[in-house]
Amino acid sequence: MTKNLVDIRRDGPVVTVLINRPERMNALNREAWRQLGAVFADTINPDMEIRCVVVKGEGGRAFAAGADIAEFAEARADAAQAARYDTIMRDGLAMVAACPHPVIAQIAGPCVGGGLELAALCDLRISGRSGRFGVPVGKIAVTMTLPELAQVQRLIGSAAMMEILLEARVFDAAEALAKGLVHRVVEDEALEEEVAATVRRITANAPLVNRRHKALVRLADSRGAGPFSEAEQALAYDCLATADHAEGMAAFAAKRPARFTGR
Amino acid sequence: MTKNLVDIRRDGPVVTVLINRPERMNALNREAWRQLGAVFADTINPDMEIRCVVVKGEGGRAFAAGADIAEFAEARADAAQAARYDTIMRDGLAMVAACPHPVIAQIAGPCVGGGLELAALCDLRISGRSGRFGVPVGKIAVTMTLPELAQVQRLIGSAAMMEILLEARVFDAAEALAKGLVHRVVEDEALEEEVAATVRRITANAPLVNRRHKALVRLADSRGAGPFSEAEQALAYDCLATADHAEGMAAFAAKRPARFTGR
Amino acid sequence: MTKNLVDIRRDGPVVTVLINRPERMNALNREAWRQLGAVFADTINPDMEIRCVVVKGEGGRAFAAGADIAEFAEARADAAQAARYDTIMRDGLAMVAACPHPVIAQIAGPCVGGGLELAALCDLRISGRSGRFGVPVGKIAVTMTLPELAQVQRLIGSAAMMEILLEARVFDAAEALAKGLVHRVVEDEALEEEVAATVRRITANAPLVNRRHKALVRLADSRGAGPFSEAEQALAYDCLATADHAEGMAAFAAKRPARFTGR
Repeated sequence: MTKNLVDIRRDGPVVTVLINRPERMNALNREAWRQLGAVFADTINPDMEIRCVVVKGEGGRAFAAGADIAEFAEARADAAQAARYDTIMRDGLAMVAACPHPVIAQIAGPCVGGGLELAALCDLRISGRSGRFGVPVGKIAVTMTLPELAQVQRLIGSAAMMEILLEARVFDAAEALAKGLVHRVVEDEALEEEVAATVRRITANAPLVNRRHKALVRLADSRGAGPFSEAEQALAYDCLATADHAEGMAAFAAKRPARFTGR
Repeated sequence: MTKNLVDIRRDGPVVTVLINRPERMNALNREAWRQLGAVFADTINPDMEIRCVVVKGEGGRAFAAGADIAEFAEARADAAQAARYDTIMRDGLAMVAACPHPVIAQIAGPCVGGGLELAALCDLRISGRSGRFGVPVGKIAVTMTLPELAQVQRLIGSAAMMEILLEARVFDAAEALAKGLVHRVVEDEALEEEVAATVRRITANAPLVNRRHKALVRLADSRGAGPFSEAEQALAYDCLATADHAEGMAAFAAKRPARFTGR
Repeated sequence: MTKNLVDIRRDGPVVTVLINRPERMNALNREAWRQLGAVFADTINPDMEIRCVVVKGEGGRAFAAGADIAEFAEARADAAQAARYDTIMRDGLAMVAACPHPVIAQIAGPCVGGGLELAALCDLRISGRSGRFGVPVGKIAVTMTLPELAQVQRLIGSAAMMEILLEARVFDAAEALAKGLVHRVVEDEALEEEVAATVRRITANAPLVNRRHKALVRLADSRGAGPFSEAEQALAYDCLATADHAEGMAAFAAKRPARFTGR
């Protein structure tokens, strides 16, 4: 029986995605990239009952130590192989990027190379003190691929990206926070609860609005300060016709928390 | 007699704009957006004797607690109403954005939702320790409008914007500083003097150069690293033909502060 | 005999560029801009044996105190002169920007105006505690030129750029770090060794990959998140056909540091 390299657990509207190669520090090989893409494409992305997704590494000692370099000698040894390998990786990452729901990366231990690229496509990155970050590919004479480089650079700017690639250092969670690579850092013992509290905050909001906000932030990222068309401006108005908006306004007037249903 | 919701005070070349609904934590309703726009369009923007503008909330306990949600049930309940409401808000904000003079937001207490959007269009944001920030509209199933979202995102990047919207937390001034949402934070007791010192630094520079620098930073924001046309490059040269430039060079040679007249 | 205003020292694959006007706090005049450009264009940029470049100020008390304002009265007094002066400066800066090798700015003391523009075109900026930063040209009624403004703004965003220009303050290294203007700050006594350690980390990577990473970060800066063409994606694949890549993979397998030759 083949082991799942990417597992999924469901708790009501919250889904946890587990990178499941703890014996290899959750390094991502081709099969893991494929399974990661499949889990998002088939199970998570189409399901509008889901309100939040958490991605983490099985075992709690590593988020993902990068692409599995042991595989490179046979699978990414020349340009033609690399183009095929990268297509598999990129298809997997594209399904994470396409997720309409809020996605949190829960990070402990190595979050390096391909693991960092995966984290960069999540919406929030929360790290334990043990988080380790970097893209040290210059040490093996490998060049970071441009689309993945650009996704990380989008978060931290060109100055920090230059430092990460040219020095090829692996750095700690405090430095990752200073660089804007993660949203917050807590002690490892507090990580599970910090992520749970964040999930509670996210799922307390109207699901349609969370999904729309995610889409609008992405849109603003690619479009700068605009100008925006009337149709783009109207993307803020769908919510007003929902039962959830009526509930939100009633709850606000009554000074009580709203109970949203996603309708 | 109708109360002014936006007041203006003049002290030589320095103008203070007061959001004046302290009994409602300076929440901005349609009439306040209209008056805000009128104050900038009619009084501040055309007056080239002005060297600096300070925007703050009357009463000192709130900058602006957001759009006035009490008004939403009758004025922003469906898409058609929202488009009309947002046009009023956006016309007000556009006049702030069009101000040619340096504008400082002096922030204490809530600077939330529409208040944060207003602060984002100012050039400098200086907060007292009591500053509170956020866009918690997901809690009432309202979506942030894209043009305003993009203006805040321009300051802090997509990662922080995603966090602000998906978590819908209201956070303190220290976190706002870490996110790049404000330029500096001082104790509330020191806020008035810190803003006054900043006004003195700004008004000590040549007014034409300050206005031109503001325009150039905006231009660079929309154009990235260029390339820039000869005409755009020449925007740095108008100053050289002014009496203020002669005064600046004379003062530099004599190692004394320059006395600029704006000519 | 004319003094060199820009000197160069070579230590194997590492080149140090010295701004050499310590008696003027290394202020850059036209001749210095010309020599700076020539040193990069003629000696550094074409030499593929070079693996890292360090730019610093002779004497250790100043990186570069800006353009030499003493020269402005005769050389930048009106728009026509300014266009000529700026062409000389910009040609010098363009050669630094065109350097294919990693470039570190080693900063102590003033790094102001034109000095800051030079530092902004380096890839890493490491400052001693004595570093002083700013663009206080508003005090002499001079406007920062747009292409140079945009290069600094690219690093720190429009909010910080607005603050730097409108307040015209000169600020310390801790504030420069907080603004993202430098990568790290160490005590002045530790600066030489911190830069040396950074050079060792950079030169431990495959030279082709460092150069390619530098080019890709620049490309991502101008292109955002893409999309990227197949040819652009393939920029990550040249390295795979090199002896250095074989060495990198062998070293990785043997858990030893790689010895790269640049081939």
